Amino acid sequence: MTDRTYSPVTNEILQELKAIVGERYVIAGDDDKLEPYSHDEVKGEQYAHMPECVVRPRKAEEIAEIMKLANREHVAVTPRGAGSGMSGGAVPIEGGIVLLMDRMNDIVELDKENMMITVEPGVVANDINEYLAEYDLFYAGYPMSLETCFIGGNVAENAGGGKAVKYGVTSRYVLGLEVVTPTGEIVELGGKLIKDVTGYNMIQLMVGSEGTLGVFTKIVLKLMPLPKSQVDLLCLFDSAEQAIECVPQIMTRSGIIPTAIEFMDRTAVRAACEYLNESIPYEQAGAMLLITVDGPSEEQVEHDYMQIGDQCMEAGASEVYVADNSTTSERVWKVRRNIGEAYNVISKRQCAEDIVVPPACIPAIVGKLGELSEKYDVMMPCFGHAGDGNLHARIVSPPEWSDEQWEPVAEKILNELYKFTAQCGGRISGEHGIGHKRKKYMSYFVSEGYLDMLRAVKRGMDPNNILNPGKIFDLQGKA
Amino acid sequence: MTDRTYSPVTNEILQELKAIVGERYVIAGDDDKLEPYSHDEVKGEQYAHMPECVVRPRKAEEIAEIMKLANREHVAVTPRGAGSGMSGGAVPIEGGIVLLMDRMNDIVELDKENMMITVEPGVVANDINEYLAEYDLFYAGYPMSLETCFIGGNVAENAGGGKAVKYGVTSRYVLGLEVVTPTGEIVELGGKLIKDVTGYNMIQLMVGSEGTLGVFTKIVLKLMPLPKSQVDLLCLFDSAEQAIECVPQIMTRSGIIPTAIEFMDRTAVRAACEYLNESIPYEQAGAMLLITVDGPSEEQVEHDYMQIGDQCMEAGASEVYVADNSTTSERVWKVRRNIGEAYNVISKRQCAEDIVVPPACIPAIVGKLGELSEKYDVMMPCFGHAGDGNLHARIVSPPEWSDEQWEPVAEKILNELYKFTAQCGGRISGEHGIGHKRKKYMSYFVSEGYLDMLRAVKRGMDPNNILNPGKIFDLQGKA
Repeated sequence: MTDRTYSPVTNEILQELKAIVGERYVIAGDDDKLEPYSHDEVKGEQYAHMPECVVRPRKAEEIAEIMKLANREHVAVTPRGAGSGMSGGAVPIEGGIVLLMDRMNDIVELDKENMMITVEPGVVANDINEYLAEYDLFYAGYPMSLETCFIGGNVAENAGGGKAVKYGVTSRYVLGLEVVTPTGEIVELGGKLIKDVTGYNMIQLMVGSEGTLGVFTKIVLKLMPLPKSQVDLLCLFDSAEQAIECVPQIMTRSGIIPTAIEFMDRTAVRAACEYLNESIPYEQAGAMLLITVDGPSEEQVEHDYMQIGDQCMEAGASEVYVADNSTTSERVWKVRRNIGEAYNVISKRQCAEDIVVPPACIPAIVGKLGELSEKYDVMMPCFGHAGDGNLHARIVSPPEWSDEQWEPVAEKILNELYKFTAQCGGRISGEHGIGHKRKKYMSYFVSEGYLDMLRAVKRGMDPNNILNPGKIFDLQGKA
Repeated sequence: MTDRTYSPVTNEILQELKAIVGERYVIAGDDDKLEPYSHDEVKGEQYAHMPECVVRPRKAEEIAEIMKLANREHVAVTPRGAGSGMSGGAVPIEGGIVLLMDRMNDIVELDKENMMITVEPGVVANDINEYLAEYDLFYAGYPMSLETCFIGGNVAENAGGGKAVKYGVTSRYVLGLEVVTPTGEIVELGGKLIKDVTGYNMIQLMVGSEGTLGVFTKIVLKLMPLPKSQVDLLCLFDSAEQAIECVPQIMTRSGIIPTAIEFMDRTAVRAACEYLNESIPYEQAGAMLLITVDGPSEEQVEHDYMQIGDQCMEAGASEVYVADNSTTSERVWKVRRNIGEAYNVISKRQCAEDIVVPPACIPAIVGKLGELSEKYDVMMPCFGHAGDGNLHARIVSPPEWSDEQWEPVAEKILNELYKFTAQCGGRISGEHGIGHKRKKYMSYFVSEGYLDMLRAVKRGMDPNNILNPGKIFDLQGKA
């Protein structure tokens, strides 16, 4: 970004890259064609950076050759999936090569007996479950961008999503990885194994490392039996505070772990409904909880959702709607999944936040968001995975503000919000990652000793700092 | 072991250690007092090594000082919990200091609202659940040594145990760690957070790192609602093959994930029953499955265990006994937990194996064990966490054999067993760890590229190789 620390992609290097992957799979010298790879879903010019070329490999061996070439020539390499990231993780901030994984999109093997599937990183997350439906199996990852995001990006970011309360996040399902290391070795980690302590847990180090420690070329995922029954509850509350205070109690009082507990305030639901031209009964409510229960029998699911519905009514819900068929369920979840997209349309000046706190602290955080929204007079719709303590607040500029008005205010809001989050024992990201977007705020949440650990790992595995440099932390000095 | 690579613990160093932790908490100069810390549960003189001193710190700050001293003086430090390990992980094979964690045994805080508990590493695993019982919460770890093992050791080894089929292993429950690094910094990782991608997943790198990357001084564990109902099934089969073939089908056919699926062959059950002077109906059966089902209601648990019982009968079980009260349940589980101990009494010449394979391969592995047992004419009782693909075979010398007779035979059996396991896509350890016991076999299962990754991490975090050196892999050359 400042002084050039990497070598440029010369014509000679381009020729070598073409020899490795084939001429048609190298994009270079055409800004219009390169531009889509200069950003992800993070808004703001300051987070974008043009690559010098985009390379679309088909095999691990090709990636290994590219990494060796990049190390030899000291060129930065940034892996990229669908580009649906929320922290700039796939943005080539040092220029160089973008390694686009879209051609590596085979479902390699379904192993029904072991309840595992092996996929390439470029498979769209939702395609896995469409493929599995007929086998009564499913993959429990459910990121909100599931219709577009690649499974490789899910693994790189340790995607969370809608079903994490019961099923956990991506990391729980990654049993094996084939990885190309930053220095160009192809290494297998784990395998079709439920338990494995044969060495350090490098798989879990790789999951969520945001493409800085290795490029995934094969992924073995654990599958679950497809629940035989599933019901969604849409629980309406008069106020956000009431809804959110109910969340920690659901599990502690009922002893039931629901599949999902999603929180949406009224403005968030309205925006998504308008964007989709959909109507769910938001007008009646200040906020709502979308609670999913699934299980191996209708009786059990009925037992569970009745108990949870009663809990919500006791906690002051005004209505509890039951969606017990897949059409209604999909309508409601589509609203939830499209909140982010709806706000993207409303304003280009906004921050999509991803703070995570101890679950019992979410009422305090929601209160703080309301307070900040009032103090600075900006929209701050709030929604997210309340059951995990992971809230997505959007801080949205009034449409009439200029960049000059917006930026200092956004900065102040983030500072106050992050300080409060840190006081709660929270962190800056629950599932979107740090990338380069949140890097400068890391010191609010973690110690220099912790960052030194990350640096030690990165230096050990990527001695020339070739793979996705400048993400999560800076290698030198303060991050 | 060969040339001395570390400095001796001199009188001056001992004085410094006494100044740090207090004179009475340093053991030195008395072989009788040091001997208990020269080994863990691994049998065989060749795996034991005397420490030069044992130090019993009370606080993270003391451990930080000890690590700084050890780095300055180049003395090896080996952390140790209850010494119930199965791979020599706590054995000070380079002499030096044993860091005994027994005094750090406080339950620091129960956070009911967040369903989390913070403990020190020296708390006995079972004490956590005894403490939690009155709050309708539980910690889902269930290692077979739970009455003696320390939670710190469970985290260091990523202990598995009896409930991992449904609940997963230790790693799933570790949300936060306070760690003293190998160079003596105190660092906090994670916290009371269900999701967190604020940096690499250092917690999961620490879990299962066998005390080579850091010393845990505080552990935040996720808790679960105490199941309101639990039932054990004891399913008797005529043969081990029949029992084990049933295992992968239970989940794929019923769609139910039981809490536990433990396999025990007849000789294993008999040994434990004789050791405990207990009688469970083993005489009728060639092998049995101990299957546990738990859940939030009696109806659901009944539904689940009826289905699973039917599955077992269809798969050829001769009897299915239902243990639906805690006394009977504990009797059966006590038999399972004591198989290892029973064989310890029978012979001192034995190997306790911990192989893990893709779950669908366990019938093949059990067949191979039978074949090897016949070929070499040694007892090979077989038991373990069949639902996870993790089998504990004991290879037990006939009582009349000498060491000279036993050792080459054991070596041959292990070689054949490990090669077959590797062919199945399996690994050498599912939960006991590598330590120094299994180090020389690592190359059967993992690549040099993988080991180089581990070495890079270890070198980055422990540049002087002070903390638990010589475990899992050798830093130089081939492991």
